[in-house]
Amino acid sequence: MKVDIENPVREASNKGESKRQMLINIGTVIFTQKGFSSTSLDEIVVSAKIPKGSFYYYFRGKEDFAIEVIKNYGNYFSRKLERILNDQTKSPIERLKAFMNEATYGVMRYEFKRGCLIGNLGQEMASLEEGFRIALLDVIRDWRDRIEACIEEAKQIGEINVTLDSNVLSRFFWSAWEGAVLCAKLEQSEKPLQIVGEVFIDQLLQPVSIVN
Amino acid sequence: MKVDIENPVREASNKGESKRQMLINIGTVIFTQKGFSSTSLDEIVVSAKIPKGSFYYYFRGKEDFAIEVIKNYGNYFSRKLERILNDQTKSPIERLKAFMNEATYGVMRYEFKRGCLIGNLGQEMASLEEGFRIALLDVIRDWRDRIEACIEEAKQIGEINVTLDSNVLSRFFWSAWEGAVLCAKLEQSEKPLQIVGEVFIDQLLQPVSIVN
Repeated sequence: MKVDIENPVREASNKGESKRQMLINIGTVIFTQKGFSSTSLDEIVVSAKIPKGSFYYYFRGKEDFAIEVIKNYGNYFSRKLERILNDQTKSPIERLKAFMNEATYGVMRYEFKRGCLIGNLGQEMASLEEGFRIALLDVIRDWRDRIEACIEEAKQIGEINVTLDSNVLSRFFWSAWEGAVLCAKLEQSEKPLQIVGEVFIDQLLQPVSIVN
Repeated sequence: MKVDIENPVREASNKGESKRQMLINIGTVIFTQKGFSSTSLDEIVVSAKIPKGSFYYYFRGKEDFAIEVIKNYGNYFSRKLERILNDQTKSPIERLKAFMNEATYGVMRYEFKRGCLIGNLGQEMASLEEGFRIALLDVIRDWRDRIEACIEEAKQIGEINVTLDSNVLSRFFWSAWEGAVLCAKLEQSEKPLQIVGEVFIDQLLQPVSIVN
């Protein structure tokens, strides 16, 4: 497999980065495309051009390595959410739309092949360790908290008029978004993401400017 | 892996079924739990207690076999949808709720381990053949058509007042539902499915009895 180390990896990359971080970056790309079970450790070390012994200097094994990859992806995506959802030059709903646009672009730029690492590994859950489930759940909880806070801010300033609980709305959003990433891969189209974005904002959040 | 051949397999099973169907049933269970790439052909034939040669009598190879498994799962689920969504003793919205309740039970009875074969294989898409994508997409399109028709019927009889296009609503529903199955696995809880069900029906479809 050609390992094209870009987003979500590039942000974490610089010339002084450690070999450990390079391995995590490579793991992020390969696991996102192929999942955990079907990726061999050999594939990782060959892509990284290091001897296998070096891998064990940094990680206890493949499971330990994958959990670090999940945490790294979670942190990368968390920083992205923080940057977009805390942008005070935009209203909360404009920030939500900006996030969806950027995430949609992220799916399109890899020709609908990669999807979301959390979604991909989550689907493998039945055959994975309990440690994976906890790590994946931690990531999704952090993402939910951030969307929930943004929806809550929109409520506070009267940008939306919805009475439904912000936590419920955020949980609903992430189910719909992860499912739409899957459907985008199947359809090879951004349409499912657009539908989720539009219906969620216009029909569920109902910004006041649209209602009036 | 212990192969527990039950729903979605039981319906297709009977004593007179062919070896071919038995292999498909076993494949359905194992692929749903472990995905395609990490399942070996040896695992399938060992579970089926047949020599490998017999496998090749029925299928050209693992890819060909997996596509038959996808079709079988699609047909099984399609019949389930038909049975529930065409039940004329219930209103269209009651049928939608009945489907969601039954599907939620299906996820719970396997302790949130199995999820949805279509979602699981869809996540592996990047590393799978184009033939898989088409087969998975055919299944999801059939499911969408059925939910769309049910929503359309609810509109026609005035059970819901929503103006949004039924096709868009159905597409939205399946994204949200597939994502909720994933989140249910991560959380080991039916809560994500309940949230999607309630928000979709009460907030998006808005049955007239709730609005008034």
